[in-house]
Amino acid sequence: MTLYEIEREILPLDTAAMEMARRRWDAIAKPLHSLGLLEDAVVRIAGITGSADVMLGKRAVLMMCADNGVVAEGVTQTGQDVTAIVAENAAKGDSSVCRMARVAGADVIAVDVGVARPVAEAVLDRNIRRGTRNIALEPAMTEAEAMAAINVGIDLVREKKAEGYGMFALGEMGIGNTTTASAVTAMLTGAHIESVTGRGAGLSDEGLRRKKDAIARAIAVNHPDAQDAFSVLRCLGGLDIAALAGVCLGGALYRVPVLLDGFISAAAALAAARMCPACREFLLASHVSKEPAGMLVLDALGLKPLICAEMCLGEGTGAVAAMPLLDMALAVYDEMRTFEEIHVAAYTPQS
Amino acid sequence: MTLYEIEREILPLDTAAMEMARRRWDAIAKPLHSLGLLEDAVVRIAGITGSADVMLGKRAVLMMCADNGVVAEGVTQTGQDVTAIVAENAAKGDSSVCRMARVAGADVIAVDVGVARPVAEAVLDRNIRRGTRNIALEPAMTEAEAMAAINVGIDLVREKKAEGYGMFALGEMGIGNTTTASAVTAMLTGAHIESVTGRGAGLSDEGLRRKKDAIARAIAVNHPDAQDAFSVLRCLGGLDIAALAGVCLGGALYRVPVLLDGFISAAAALAAARMCPACREFLLASHVSKEPAGMLVLDALGLKPLICAEMCLGEGTGAVAAMPLLDMALAVYDEMRTFEEIHVAAYTPQS
Repeated sequence: MTLYEIEREILPLDTAAMEMARRRWDAIAKPLHSLGLLEDAVVRIAGITGSADVMLGKRAVLMMCADNGVVAEGVTQTGQDVTAIVAENAAKGDSSVCRMARVAGADVIAVDVGVARPVAEAVLDRNIRRGTRNIALEPAMTEAEAMAAINVGIDLVREKKAEGYGMFALGEMGIGNTTTASAVTAMLTGAHIESVTGRGAGLSDEGLRRKKDAIARAIAVNHPDAQDAFSVLRCLGGLDIAALAGVCLGGALYRVPVLLDGFISAAAALAAARMCPACREFLLASHVSKEPAGMLVLDALGLKPLICAEMCLGEGTGAVAAMPLLDMALAVYDEMRTFEEIHVAAYTPQS
Repeated sequence: MTLYEIEREILPLDTAAMEMARRRWDAIAKPLHSLGLLEDAVVRIAGITGSADVMLGKRAVLMMCADNGVVAEGVTQTGQDVTAIVAENAAKGDSSVCRMARVAGADVIAVDVGVARPVAEAVLDRNIRRGTRNIALEPAMTEAEAMAAINVGIDLVREKKAEGYGMFALGEMGIGNTTTASAVTAMLTGAHIESVTGRGAGLSDEGLRRKKDAIARAIAVNHPDAQDAFSVLRCLGGLDIAALAGVCLGGALYRVPVLLDGFISAAAALAAARMCPACREFLLASHVSKEPAGMLVLDALGLKPLICAEMCLGEGTGAVAAMPLLDMALAVYDEMRTFEEIHVAAYTPQS
């Protein structure tokens, strides 16, 4: 699909379902809006799915794995072989997000959208190319490659929704992808490179200097138009980030809530929201990353995090962490008897 | 037990177990400290229990229910009969925290520590008196009553630990208890009444004015010594808050982690930490309440919240919400194979 077709096909939230959900919350025997953002999330999901009978059902982390040519600039503390290793481990159920997902009742779907070397068969093969070009020298992707990666995300949402999944979490694995996420964020928000670039998985001072320098060169060399989010994504992003942006668009097209993870996923969501503004309403925040630009990107999206535990692991771990919170909110929403039923009709303002 | 005996019997955290737990986190194949505060919580629990083999096991919300004489000042929008009704419903498994606790695998133990009217048998009977006196006119409790309420909390931790519980969450139900919590907080932190007093379960502007006025009068009439936390608790608090302070002390005495809920529980924890400073290390924060003083009290305790979902329901709902986060952290901590095992020995700084 083209971006124009996508934007045209996204329908607005179902405000009638949202109004019903809000009324149902207000009828529950507890102080009004006392579950805060959890109530808002349930109302939003009602609007996305078109029903106040909110059920999350099966949920999956779509873990987009890809390599980034910019690692040649010494912006990471590990080699890019780690991308393939972690992708393969995740496909076997053997990575941090898999351990957490078992507690949260979520499946993890590891997707090779651009890993540099061939990976084990258990990783879903949607490889577009074996890693991007080095953004410090040239655009990361051609237009066709970027659009193909976006469509990987869109198509997966359609396919997995057909298999019964009712919620998708963004996840990623790609050595070097905090560099690309920072570059995309700097362009889309206008923030200084200094304020949006962090240590990723634990970079040294010297490595951090190289990372900021590589981002500055990437912006200078590619000079994408900040108003053209697709161009920003194509020149400065990665196949993982593009595919995650596609998941955001797919959520909006196929009306399934999409739960953000941390900084990288939020940068992808911001790119998606700038390409197709209508998709923003289909996104839910989970946590705010400890990466310096974590809150900045959520603010740019108009989203508030549920969790502030200073996590910065990636893989979808923050998104998975938020799932039990939504399950608990739904447990109150679904089963709680209303005021009248428990004879607390007086639980309304007296003065 | 007297406060002197309690403080003397609290032993420090087991730093050897904490060091082992920290090393174990650092050996897991993920960026260092990338689970942030969740890693810190597991390390703290190792120090509390004296073992790096952290297991939470059975966990319970100790939901302390009590009425507050200050409701006579028109500081609430519901009558105090609601305290008894919600306590009885909770004992039947039928309140917000119970719904959420089922998802989190926790038991809810509703305790009558000072409800104004006799309640159903299902509520654990530890009633000390049928509601406190009106703090705007006189001390809420005698010294004996306050100490008895504290010992209700301590004794419950001992008894329930013997029954196999490995973690306790603070919970409460008591119409009027944001008024007492704000009064205690204002005294213990030195903050202005204006900045620590909120709308509780949804107070009107006029009700909020009366609430602040009642707190100002309570402080003027009782003039407790801010340096004497027991006196502050006795004069301005409630039987629920005193019993929750007791749970904090019991956690430290019997070496079981205590998970705070929101504002009221944090005010109780602050009182406990001021009475017996050694108990502070045995407390874990869960969420930051939407009540205006939510963050202030956590800051005073030196605790950082995991959840920032703007909740303000009480009952222990925020504490329960944090339990799956700890379970997920432990799933990574317990089962994740180390770097070497997954052949990512290179996952260490190169520059």
